[in-house]
Amino acid sequence: MALRGRYEIRLSGSGGQGVILASVIVGEAAALKEGLYAVQTQSYGPEARGGYSKAEVVVSDSPIDYPKCVRPDISVVLTQDAYDKYGLDVKEGGLVIADNFYVRDLKGSPSIRTYSLPIVRVARDELGREIVTNIVSIGALAFFLEREGVMSISSLRESVLDNVPKGTEELNLKAFERGVEIASSAV
Amino acid sequence: MALRGRYEIRLSGSGGQGVILASVIVGEAAALKEGLYAVQTQSYGPEARGGYSKAEVVVSDSPIDYPKCVRPDISVVLTQDAYDKYGLDVKEGGLVIADNFYVRDLKGSPSIRTYSLPIVRVARDELGREIVTNIVSIGALAFFLEREGVMSISSLRESVLDNVPKGTEELNLKAFERGVEIASSAV
Repeated sequence: MALRGRYEIRLSGSGGQGVILASVIVGEAAALKEGLYAVQTQSYGPEARGGYSKAEVVVSDSPIDYPKCVRPDISVVLTQDAYDKYGLDVKEGGLVIADNFYVRDLKGSPSIRTYSLPIVRVARDELGREIVTNIVSIGALAFFLEREGVMSISSLRESVLDNVPKGTEELNLKAFERGVEIASSAV
Repeated sequence: MALRGRYEIRLSGSGGQGVILASVIVGEAAALKEGLYAVQTQSYGPEARGGYSKAEVVVSDSPIDYPKCVRPDISVVLTQDAYDKYGLDVKEGGLVIADNFYVRDLKGSPSIRTYSLPIVRVARDELGREIVTNIVSIGALAFFLEREGVMSISSLRESVLDNVPKGTEELNLKAFERGVEIASSAV
């Protein structure tokens, strides 16, 4: 991979969907596997008590001045609330990955590429563990990040394995691979 | 608690000491338990491949403009490298909590309050699990954050329990309480 410049990634959903761990995994993939600069942040306001969760990763081939997303290149949204708040504020030509179980009402925009993917359905119905929703998301994100030239699928896969509890590697690897597949089937 | 204004917390050490999870726990305690605004960040540069790890939490009673530490109010340092880099850049009158096993060479400064605490020794020798180093650190941090009027020990304890794997609550709670104790014994 050879990322030039700055690339902004946002993940949002409800508390318990694991978006913070997902963003840590993405940040570590960028820094530890790809040798990029990366800053990972989560911001909480008083609304966080409502179970709302948002995390961001900014990656760059040079030191990062402003550590938060100005306007994301790609945004993963796992609930309708997250979509309503963040589904349309990606950059012109940017990408939105929306879960098709919790996000039913897509507004769309001609300048945004929105993919509605069965992230939660794969985690819950196919793999039997909704807790791996975040890892399925990372798989889907990995497909697009590799295609955009930001980082490789294998860097993200390694970072997933570095960060999940011992004994759960097989389940999480499966979740990751299915995430890659549902994304590749959608384009 | 009634924090007024902005308060900056930094944690640094080596990869594997769990400073990122520690900072997530502190950020969530501030936001979800205390109703504060909080931003939690970690920045990685190319040096991250060397296993170096740093995470920050900024908390405030009002929305946070700049999400990174400008000059921390309190800094937890778990290795000599971390101390050499960050042990002296806290604010005038600020606090440094240094692990006394890995940080042997303290420079000190008349304007900084430095506490050298047996964080790793408690985790490894007393509890038998160096992996809880980060939770002992949070306990020590909790003592000072409560004393500084930032957030309560009980908010941090709850946040620890929210974030550790099921089945490890007892060990982590013990680690937290011992962290509080070694800090309170040191002042």
